[in-house]
Amino acid sequence: MPELRHDPFQRRWVIIATERTRRPQGYARGPEALPRGGFCPFCPGNESSTPPEIRSVRDDGSAANGPGWKLRVIPNKFPALRVEGELEREGVGLFDRMSGVGAHEVIVDGPEHSRHLADMSYGEIERVIDAASERLRDLQRDHRLKYVLIFKNHGEAAGASLAHPHTQIIATPVTPRTVAAELEAAQAHFRAKERCLYCDVLSQEVKDGSRIVRVDSSFVVLTPYASRFPFELMVLPRKHSCTFGEMSADERSALARALRDTLRRLKVALDDPPFNFMIHTSPNLDYEPARPFHFQTLRWDYHWHMEIIPRLTRVAGFEWGTGFYINPTPPEDAAAFLRQVDIEA
Amino acid sequence: MPELRHDPFQRRWVIIATERTRRPQGYARGPEALPRGGFCPFCPGNESSTPPEIRSVRDDGSAANGPGWKLRVIPNKFPALRVEGELEREGVGLFDRMSGVGAHEVIVDGPEHSRHLADMSYGEIERVIDAASERLRDLQRDHRLKYVLIFKNHGEAAGASLAHPHTQIIATPVTPRTVAAELEAAQAHFRAKERCLYCDVLSQEVKDGSRIVRVDSSFVVLTPYASRFPFELMVLPRKHSCTFGEMSADERSALARALRDTLRRLKVALDDPPFNFMIHTSPNLDYEPARPFHFQTLRWDYHWHMEIIPRLTRVAGFEWGTGFYINPTPPEDAAAFLRQVDIEA
Repeated sequence: MPELRHDPFQRRWVIIATERTRRPQGYARGPEALPRGGFCPFCPGNESSTPPEIRSVRDDGSAANGPGWKLRVIPNKFPALRVEGELEREGVGLFDRMSGVGAHEVIVDGPEHSRHLADMSYGEIERVIDAASERLRDLQRDHRLKYVLIFKNHGEAAGASLAHPHTQIIATPVTPRTVAAELEAAQAHFRAKERCLYCDVLSQEVKDGSRIVRVDSSFVVLTPYASRFPFELMVLPRKHSCTFGEMSADERSALARALRDTLRRLKVALDDPPFNFMIHTSPNLDYEPARPFHFQTLRWDYHWHMEIIPRLTRVAGFEWGTGFYINPTPPEDAAAFLRQVDIEA
Repeated sequence: MPELRHDPFQRRWVIIATERTRRPQGYARGPEALPRGGFCPFCPGNESSTPPEIRSVRDDGSAANGPGWKLRVIPNKFPALRVEGELEREGVGLFDRMSGVGAHEVIVDGPEHSRHLADMSYGEIERVIDAASERLRDLQRDHRLKYVLIFKNHGEAAGASLAHPHTQIIATPVTPRTVAAELEAAQAHFRAKERCLYCDVLSQEVKDGSRIVRVDSSFVVLTPYASRFPFELMVLPRKHSCTFGEMSADERSALARALRDTLRRLKVALDDPPFNFMIHTSPNLDYEPARPFHFQTLRWDYHWHMEIIPRLTRVAGFEWGTGFYINPTPPEDAAAFLRQVDIEA
């Protein structure tokens, strides 16, 4: 069973894989490279090499765990956290630990091994969004889980260990620190002004225009004012909503269009860069019957969004030591460059 | 002039290089690789290709900015922050910016292009520690600067852009977020117990032994209980002190021995892995005449230390989205493995 350990110096939790998935001796060979060619557990026909599917989209009425699918959701074969068992908390002298209860699932975006989101049709991307949204709502019903992160690692330098396009979902038994910091900032703004911080920034950014990459009636894509990385992007719904799990069908279609166009811009402009995307949504709204203040107001003071980070620069000692980032490309330059990309090229 | 921008969502500062040091078009070629062979601005004879030296160690009485040195401290030719100018703060609508005032210096560890810390003599490493400590004390006299980070990027994957062994110093006009989080945790512990958190952990870890890599009368080297990365290490002085800048000569020698032995262990065990080290020291103690509470107590509740991170795994979407880390190697396994390395091999 993996375990969660609390760092008393930084007050953050870390997942320690106590099953020893990687022995010390293994590191001298350097980071594992993405296998080229060879066997892919996510390709049609190889369904038996993954755990049984949680959900799949099959228009042809084919049977579960066999070919014929258009999208599959499966438990991760090597999960960072395990869904079985009780959440046990324990003090170890000055330290704190917790059993590694959670969930780790994979959405196989589609059957084709090399067809990534940027190359998919709007309908195909919408299918991935629908599946992610449904899994979010389902996992939020598990009262042991406090947060659900939906994310993608595209390319080796972004941490992908399999090339077949897939999206991951990890649900954690604590609210992660980055999420807590965002909630605190948004709540402080809401308390002071009775307005959503994200709605305020959206309105200012749309007026200003210099950091806008793409805008339609439902979503705004922009390079954040204090971007940490070159070409960092944020995708924000224009209608205030705290959760990714409550979009209407029209909003999900609009997101598919915004996402595909944005990923195509990155692909064309930067020659298919490695990237990560992460969906920032509110912590699980109903995990505790007696909600503290911030869970009551959450619907009004948090605003879900998506973050996209192309992995073009390396994080080094300065960033690790301070949490401070040095960005060599002003976000205004990045936005101007992305705006003029011909995505039909 | 670079500028500092504040992220309203995460409440962190980012350095934006407004001089456009890297144009958008440059990224499509991928991350820049360390040049192999060719011209090295840090090698003896090439002193004129760096800005004039701030300090050097020359036993032979040779003239500044020419060969004959054993160590040089120079301003970074492409600084992330600039030492000239006033610290100007400005609101930009909802956003906040600050002029990019600070310092960015380089210690060229020694004249030999390929002789890294792990291969140096204790005396040579002590020279680097002495220089870093002196620069820290000097930069702390500049009242515009709030924090001084001393760090090293070793190897391309750790962000080094020049192969010649060097250590970097960046001084920032704000206390960085990671530092602030550490101070808050240490202060909360001190307020509750009137004891230093680091002293308490040290004493527990030495008794327990399972995460200890090396111990002598002055320093303890251990793998932290909640290590984020495989083989992450912490070097802690056993005598309580809040700052790296106030070690005695004996302590500096002891640190040189602890550091060299630890880096050799990593080099032998993991085949010269890329790594970063960062010195966590207290913020500038005398930067403000009217000190808030935490600067009065800082001497007692903060404990300087060194963090070493071998770069063996990739940081991916989950870590970026949550600040939560997944470590596939328990720190007890890493410590046991490093303890049995023959560093004279």
